[in-house]
Amino acid sequence: MSNEFAIIEQYFTAIGKPTNSTILGIGDDAAVVEVPAGHQLVVAMDTLIAGTHFPLDTSPADIAYKSLAVNLSDLAAMGASPAWFLLSLSLEDDDPRWLSQFADSLSQTADTFGLHLIGGDTCRGKLAISVQIAGHVPSNQYVRRQGAAVGDIILVSGELGNAALGLAHTKGKVALAPALQAKCGLALNRPRPRLELTPFLREFASSAIDLSDGLVGDLRHILEASDCGARIAREALPVDAWIERHGAFEYALDAGDDYEICCTLPAGLRSEVDNWNREHPQCRLTPVGEITESGYHLRDGENLIDLSQRKGYRHFD
Amino acid sequence: MSNEFAIIEQYFTAIGKPTNSTILGIGDDAAVVEVPAGHQLVVAMDTLIAGTHFPLDTSPADIAYKSLAVNLSDLAAMGASPAWFLLSLSLEDDDPRWLSQFADSLSQTADTFGLHLIGGDTCRGKLAISVQIAGHVPSNQYVRRQGAAVGDIILVSGELGNAALGLAHTKGKVALAPALQAKCGLALNRPRPRLELTPFLREFASSAIDLSDGLVGDLRHILEASDCGARIAREALPVDAWIERHGAFEYALDAGDDYEICCTLPAGLRSEVDNWNREHPQCRLTPVGEITESGYHLRDGENLIDLSQRKGYRHFD
Repeated sequence: MSNEFAIIEQYFTAIGKPTNSTILGIGDDAAVVEVPAGHQLVVAMDTLIAGTHFPLDTSPADIAYKSLAVNLSDLAAMGASPAWFLLSLSLEDDDPRWLSQFADSLSQTADTFGLHLIGGDTCRGKLAISVQIAGHVPSNQYVRRQGAAVGDIILVSGELGNAALGLAHTKGKVALAPALQAKCGLALNRPRPRLELTPFLREFASSAIDLSDGLVGDLRHILEASDCGARIAREALPVDAWIERHGAFEYALDAGDDYEICCTLPAGLRSEVDNWNREHPQCRLTPVGEITESGYHLRDGENLIDLSQRKGYRHFD
Repeated sequence: MSNEFAIIEQYFTAIGKPTNSTILGIGDDAAVVEVPAGHQLVVAMDTLIAGTHFPLDTSPADIAYKSLAVNLSDLAAMGASPAWFLLSLSLEDDDPRWLSQFADSLSQTADTFGLHLIGGDTCRGKLAISVQIAGHVPSNQYVRRQGAAVGDIILVSGELGNAALGLAHTKGKVALAPALQAKCGLALNRPRPRLELTPFLREFASSAIDLSDGLVGDLRHILEASDCGARIAREALPVDAWIERHGAFEYALDAGDDYEICCTLPAGLRSEVDNWNREHPQCRLTPVGEITESGYHLRDGENLIDLSQRKGYRHFD
């Protein structure tokens, strides 16, 4: 077998493009970076574990993509632009085919999103990928979960529930037609971090979060951080016709892995949403409800369902 | 069982002290930091996996300590001062006793070294701890593996081999007397990152590395990065009398986990080493050899042993 230094040298030294802000990359005890003048650094770390965060038979290319995408989604929610990342890769063995497919996809994804790999380690263990990501934001223009105010519109990007629907299909729980299966497979394995939204969020959003654990659970974080309530409308949820037809709104409400953005906007800025949607048909924002003083409810036709005790996906439940 | 949000809230929100440079800590999609004017950010990430990097019966307090110490050691080798860290904790379950012991030790260690925990995640999986650490260094004063020049003195801090000797004792491979067992147990479970050396390294060292995989293997990284050779002397190695008595120098040469610093210094600065040692008896620097044009040898009495093919500890060998 090879060793950890050889693995890093062979597969991971040329991933992404150096920028002015990466002074010293892979190959020393640590990397050295600078933050552009007038900017702050936004940092996050997410770990994907085989069998927990992705099925064991997920392709190495999809695993590499997703390990960056979930972290990029955190940057998007904060209004930050990608800069660099560190990778900690735990492997049961060092199968060259697996490693080169993983590294190729990581490299493509890093290029796509303007990320530079500057360090990390590899070690032996059950397959797990930790990515620590950093992005830049103009000083004090980052967007928080805190900041939503009574009357704000609640928006979500894209469609909700497709990733969970894709997972249900791979588990044999539902049977999707080929076209929908392809769409949901992409949502599950290739979630698109909504980085195009960052200028919009920085300029207009009163709060934002990315949807990794389901709308109900993640919006609750905004409500807790902002000390307010919310009412969302089932009819407003942007979902595929399949979910509509099967009344399977739990995919959109409670299931994770969408990596869409949920944000709030002062009601007076409603026209900015229309402008955005005209110019960005691939990243539509849909109003799904509004911020209230207290309580947390879903309006479903005539019914008002209490969401305050309803849980999203949590790893330790 | 509890859930990941509750775990983070209960155990990990108040670890270390915020500084001017941490603008937004735990509790959002990402953290926000600034780098002090005239400084660069030095970043590293190391993962510890149960059974690979520490024995399964290691105490949660020792695991927490070591997960920070190995990363702090990387900062020390670069000449950087600790600032903040992110933690990714993978757990098989969320035993409150284990978690509170882990968090208490993490907190104490963070306080000791001036680190602030600003983010991360917890998830279910085999016990593994990824720490991404960041420190500050005055711009362009960081120390690299590259930079050693012919004639430079090679120095190591502290004593070598004690951590490996401690591990050998716990595995029943050697039987140490109680006092030595205690010393080696500390070296194994509580390695002291040599942060006190950072001003010395920034001012005088031509290159540096921390010793995680054994002197022979880690010094090789300096030689490769600096494109030079080295000759070290067995008689000069700073080791415990036990290693001397048993002729067990492989503990000092090839075994990992010492987390001492190996650095090189222009020969003309030899008097700085004496000054340092007078003032820092707890962190002595010992000259163990010199940088040569090429080759890599150990002088052992009359013998000259070729080290160029000898390997340190590598995870995938």
